[in-house]
Amino acid sequence: MALIVQKYGGSSVGSLDRIRNVASRIKKLRDEGNQVVAVVSAMGGVTDKLIGMATQLNENPPERELDVLLSSGEQQSIALLATALQGMGVDAVSATGRQAGIVTSGSHTRGRIEDINPSLLQAYLDEQKVIIVAGFQGVTQTGLIHTLGRGGSDLTAIAVAAALKADLCQILTDVDGVYTCDPRVVKNARKLPEISYDEMLEMASSGSKVMQSRSVEFAKKYGVVFEVCSSLNNNPGTLVTEEHPAMEAVVIRGVSIERSQARVTITDIPDRPGNSAKILGALADAEINVDMIVSNIASDGMARHSFTMHTNDLGRAQAALQPVLNSLSADAQLETEAGLAKLSTVGIGMRSHSGVAAKMFQALGDAGINIGMISTSEIKIAVTVDETAIEDAARVVHEVFELDKKPVA
Amino acid sequence: MALIVQKYGGSSVGSLDRIRNVASRIKKLRDEGNQVVAVVSAMGGVTDKLIGMATQLNENPPERELDVLLSSGEQQSIALLATALQGMGVDAVSATGRQAGIVTSGSHTRGRIEDINPSLLQAYLDEQKVIIVAGFQGVTQTGLIHTLGRGGSDLTAIAVAAALKADLCQILTDVDGVYTCDPRVVKNARKLPEISYDEMLEMASSGSKVMQSRSVEFAKKYGVVFEVCSSLNNNPGTLVTEEHPAMEAVVIRGVSIERSQARVTITDIPDRPGNSAKILGALADAEINVDMIVSNIASDGMARHSFTMHTNDLGRAQAALQPVLNSLSADAQLETEAGLAKLSTVGIGMRSHSGVAAKMFQALGDAGINIGMISTSEIKIAVTVDETAIEDAARVVHEVFELDKKPVA
Repeated sequence: MALIVQKYGGSSVGSLDRIRNVASRIKKLRDEGNQVVAVVSAMGGVTDKLIGMATQLNENPPERELDVLLSSGEQQSIALLATALQGMGVDAVSATGRQAGIVTSGSHTRGRIEDINPSLLQAYLDEQKVIIVAGFQGVTQTGLIHTLGRGGSDLTAIAVAAALKADLCQILTDVDGVYTCDPRVVKNARKLPEISYDEMLEMASSGSKVMQSRSVEFAKKYGVVFEVCSSLNNNPGTLVTEEHPAMEAVVIRGVSIERSQARVTITDIPDRPGNSAKILGALADAEINVDMIVSNIASDGMARHSFTMHTNDLGRAQAALQPVLNSLSADAQLETEAGLAKLSTVGIGMRSHSGVAAKMFQALGDAGINIGMISTSEIKIAVTVDETAIEDAARVVHEVFELDKKPVA
Repeated sequence: MALIVQKYGGSSVGSLDRIRNVASRIKKLRDEGNQVVAVVSAMGGVTDKLIGMATQLNENPPERELDVLLSSGEQQSIALLATALQGMGVDAVSATGRQAGIVTSGSHTRGRIEDINPSLLQAYLDEQKVIIVAGFQGVTQTGLIHTLGRGGSDLTAIAVAAALKADLCQILTDVDGVYTCDPRVVKNARKLPEISYDEMLEMASSGSKVMQSRSVEFAKKYGVVFEVCSSLNNNPGTLVTEEHPAMEAVVIRGVSIERSQARVTITDIPDRPGNSAKILGALADAEINVDMIVSNIASDGMARHSFTMHTNDLGRAQAALQPVLNSLSADAQLETEAGLAKLSTVGIGMRSHSGVAAKMFQALGDAGINIGMISTSEIKIAVTVDETAIEDAARVVHEVFELDKKPVA
């Protein structure tokens, strides 16, 4: 008998029919002899509706009250799902974040899971009950309600799986796994049977929005093996796990793309310690997420710093940097470029295979696609290209590394 | 500076506009220098909608899950009201039943308040915050969610007022106080400035549905003075309080009526100890609320027991009594009569004034209204009449005791 933790997102429980469908899936697992803990989000649309009501009452709804308001959404979906299961003869109970012992820290609307006390869940498991846990929520040590921010229900599922030492954690979503590339862009993209935590992290931070990075980081930290699979069918999904030696045989695991990128470049500033920190500090203060960072020294000895960010942040970035610029040098220049996209190739096999970058750049060059910035990590090569060329670029790279073909073991 | 606990029902917070209106009322009280704790119900209609969803998933939704589901309704209304108040510049916070320290016992969907630990509420009051508390809910010692059943938010308000030693507790409702009789029946009914707990209890149990008896009982037990008043205007309401000597000068405080009553009479049974208990026990087992009970002995020495109940219960009562009947006597007969109503006159002044019943019966007789059963307590005289005559009966009794006139002090 296996203990399986499943996570169902808001669209999976978005109507009474879908709740019945999820209940049937859980009943099937239970009937097959498994113990099941299902973590669910609020019914699709409920969260937006509640936020809409709050903002009608107050343009800037207080975050403490948003947490109280929004966490009611999961409280409804867990009760309804447990009710449906009992109607099917399954002994099921619901548990709010608090009842599941999820203790948070951090700030309202973006709480962090600090600790889990699964004693109530464990007691219900000992009584052979199916448990339906509210995702996306927890309480502070003093009992204030926190929501966990984007991807919070995934985080709940992985944390619950860790606390209960589950045999498997399944993240059920509207895609049926992690692909070598977005199948809407690359028609012959292939679903990966498995991927390592680090590759998944690089894919996530490179635009593959299957999961938020922090859930993957949490899983890696606590060694929770999880499967990303579809809530609409029973196809095997993608197992996200510790890397093992056989994984290194594959040079490139996948290609991910991210659109709507912009570049900011500051030129003609003296190459002095602390200048980069000043620039990045100003962007951090303005709460702008900087992605790629490339710095070098021009022939005249002056430094040149480039960053990428989402296009939406470009205006605020310019405003934040202008005062810093003057403090760096009278000659300092600010250049910006929008209309970019980022392509990343990811694979732990890069560590032991050379020539990956050369092969990739050659292929892009042969296809007449110009590369802008380049940034690499031990298991990733990322480049910027014109946004109009990103789909071609993805297809070219996918092709040259033969990602459509199942790797030979 | 007074500490005022207010309770707003579901219709008072039934839309965003109404929530704004409640927020304005609270802000006004706060601006006048008072500390305010408002207990609110779920937005009108939400509870029914949630129950509807649950019953679509399961004809007999489990009560444990109904409690989880329904308590989300108040969680939404408290967050929205606190959000609206903050938008008006009032430092307000919400508190769920659990956060308000409301500990319950009893069963799901009809929890009893066992204890209150108001430490979090007290801390917020010390910080001069307005607090919005979720009515109708609490948690057990082990953290399971309970709702409190009908009138549960009134109960929460009175319990919170008791725990915080509030100066006043206001039950804001869609009527603006307790009247000498239902103004829809008796046009010149007069709003009472005050009424004793015991009179209020007799009025409540006699069909004046302003409040559930148990909230009044709770208030009496803990000496919480409360005012029943309107959420739509600022008129003074009715103060419900300990009785004081001046109250006894008024013979009759009010008249209340209850329609859809039925009578069950069992005749021709031996007058033996335990027979009444058998009959009432069978009705209790069938969860039938018996109201008036009248027993006497006929000239042939056989006993005759009559009870009233709601007409809806009549069929179940007959079914429950049939087996008992045969065990009492072979001659036992069961008579039933529907189409009745009950009229009760209530007043603590009855204790010190004689001739009240005679005056009342004379007036009814003069008006040609026939009296069925009669039942009295120290402060109440209740009679049954034909349902078609109940409005006339109420007007006659209201008139003969001159309830439209303000009593002379």
